[in-house]
Amino acid sequence: MLNETWIINQLKAHFPHTIGDDAAVIPASGNQSYIISKDLLVEDVHFRRTYCSPANLAYKALQVNLSDIAAMGGKAQFVLCGIAIPMEQAQYAQDFLATLVTACKDAGVILIGGDTTRSTDKLFISISVIGSSNTDNIKYRSTAKVDDAVCVVGALGHAHLGLIACEQSLPDLLDYKNAFLRPKAKSDEGFWLAEKTCIHSMMDISDGLFIDLKRLCLASQVAAHIELNDLQPSAVFKNGCDHLQLNAINVMLTGGEDYGLLCTVDNAQYAQLAEDFKQKFGYSLQRIGNIISGTDIHFTEHAVPTHLVLTPFSHFGEAP
Amino acid sequence: MLNETWIINQLKAHFPHTIGDDAAVIPASGNQSYIISKDLLVEDVHFRRTYCSPANLAYKALQVNLSDIAAMGGKAQFVLCGIAIPMEQAQYAQDFLATLVTACKDAGVILIGGDTTRSTDKLFISISVIGSSNTDNIKYRSTAKVDDAVCVVGALGHAHLGLIACEQSLPDLLDYKNAFLRPKAKSDEGFWLAEKTCIHSMMDISDGLFIDLKRLCLASQVAAHIELNDLQPSAVFKNGCDHLQLNAINVMLTGGEDYGLLCTVDNAQYAQLAEDFKQKFGYSLQRIGNIISGTDIHFTEHAVPTHLVLTPFSHFGEAP
Repeated sequence: MLNETWIINQLKAHFPHTIGDDAAVIPASGNQSYIISKDLLVEDVHFRRTYCSPANLAYKALQVNLSDIAAMGGKAQFVLCGIAIPMEQAQYAQDFLATLVTACKDAGVILIGGDTTRSTDKLFISISVIGSSNTDNIKYRSTAKVDDAVCVVGALGHAHLGLIACEQSLPDLLDYKNAFLRPKAKSDEGFWLAEKTCIHSMMDISDGLFIDLKRLCLASQVAAHIELNDLQPSAVFKNGCDHLQLNAINVMLTGGEDYGLLCTVDNAQYAQLAEDFKQKFGYSLQRIGNIISGTDIHFTEHAVPTHLVLTPFSHFGEAP
Repeated sequence: MLNETWIINQLKAHFPHTIGDDAAVIPASGNQSYIISKDLLVEDVHFRRTYCSPANLAYKALQVNLSDIAAMGGKAQFVLCGIAIPMEQAQYAQDFLATLVTACKDAGVILIGGDTTRSTDKLFISISVIGSSNTDNIKYRSTAKVDDAVCVVGALGHAHLGLIACEQSLPDLLDYKNAFLRPKAKSDEGFWLAEKTCIHSMMDISDGLFIDLKRLCLASQVAAHIELNDLQPSAVFKNGCDHLQLNAINVMLTGGEDYGLLCTVDNAQYAQLAEDFKQKFGYSLQRIGNIISGTDIHFTEHAVPTHLVLTPFSHFGEAP
């Protein structure tokens, strides 16, 4: 069976000290390290040209990589762009590259190289972003501790609602479409959180909270307890889900491509951190549960244990 | 019109100090720099699964990136691998990744990350290699000087002959098929040459000598004179070309994917360098011409100017 987790575990067996986080870390000068991401975007897997403009695609391609750097606590500096272009998509590719240039400048990152080549039918994009950080500040997913508060930065499930709206060509749900088509990496938040020693672990939420938290727990050899009541979907979001006949809580737990942050925080220091975060960024560092010993993710609803049947997002259409 | 040169020039206009070489350079510790490549391999553009085994593909995917690092004079250290896999190619992809692990270990490089995702129909591979070098030793293509000797490391046209033999399913020409399917980056040669101050410029030969030398001349704002008699195709190579009704000199000038090195050497120091090179590596640092002032590539045959009509390799099927 082929799936992303299986592949990563196979590779990790051979290179145990380097594989498994959102981005790779290599030494830079003094107490600094470089953090390097690589994300692929494949036409008709991650986007469709029918509803994703070249400008949106370029913006998103950069942001998903910036999100990987933010998840480790780095500040993005450099970008490499590889693009494979079908002959008949020349104009789309040109517009993509023009926006990528602007998006790089807006994000304060320098395009330093890449590769352009032909593709037979689909557009294929491979971006790498190189960020840097004080080595001591870099956050990993393998260092969560029992009793940590499990927190999320950013909305959950919005991108998934947008994806469904785009796929079904619905005229409304514009904010959610925007969350899917133009996600904004939590770059400032990631860098700020990484400076705090009370943040024990961090990663981005790219494949959905449920599967990403599962990965964090596996890497840290811990379990998590999530209180569903703390997910607090807004009335507008619930209406959107109802409109599409979706369960809001399920969408929040399994919807991919939100590019928020998932972190675990020293329990004793959560309250002060949340206050500082709110003051700094104007919105909440949302606590949704706790790290506990054991394995897997355990849910309660108003403190009553509940069993959810969730189908996590997988690029291979199989259970990860 | 879309072609690789046009794209690179567009991007270079925005990021003039960073774009244009085989790989990108960023500062590392002290007087060291990192050198970072990114090369794409697209099914049915760069390889066909019908004649390219997953083992050969993994080996080649790594070597083409090692070649970029060699071309700048770096020593490869780290690898990131992105791969987009069609569902029905799971076994091919698994075999690819297994060989990639072995190939990385053989090359002394560490796999530090990447991305795996689904593709609709074609296999896409995006490898990045990160090398390091003393900053002063890094070689560029923009620093050739008038009167330099133009030299090549490695055979010219062999991979192209192999490509044709593979495409036509010919049972013979095994050495040439091997040159195409399993090219070996000139890693030791590149690193050794980069330590010499008499090497004024260097790049790898991935798209064919003619177009790559043209790029070096453009970047350095010089021209080149090539003496065709110095290309010296072997009798065996000529026979192979005859067999496929190809002109040996044309194949040597325009055939892509050899992954040799092209460098320009201080004229006064070429003889000594060539002797040292021969002693070190057991084959010749082949001199094929000179850098001159002006523009373009000028050919002579036994010192008589000659005009060649060459169709350079282009991923977009158009003149670069």
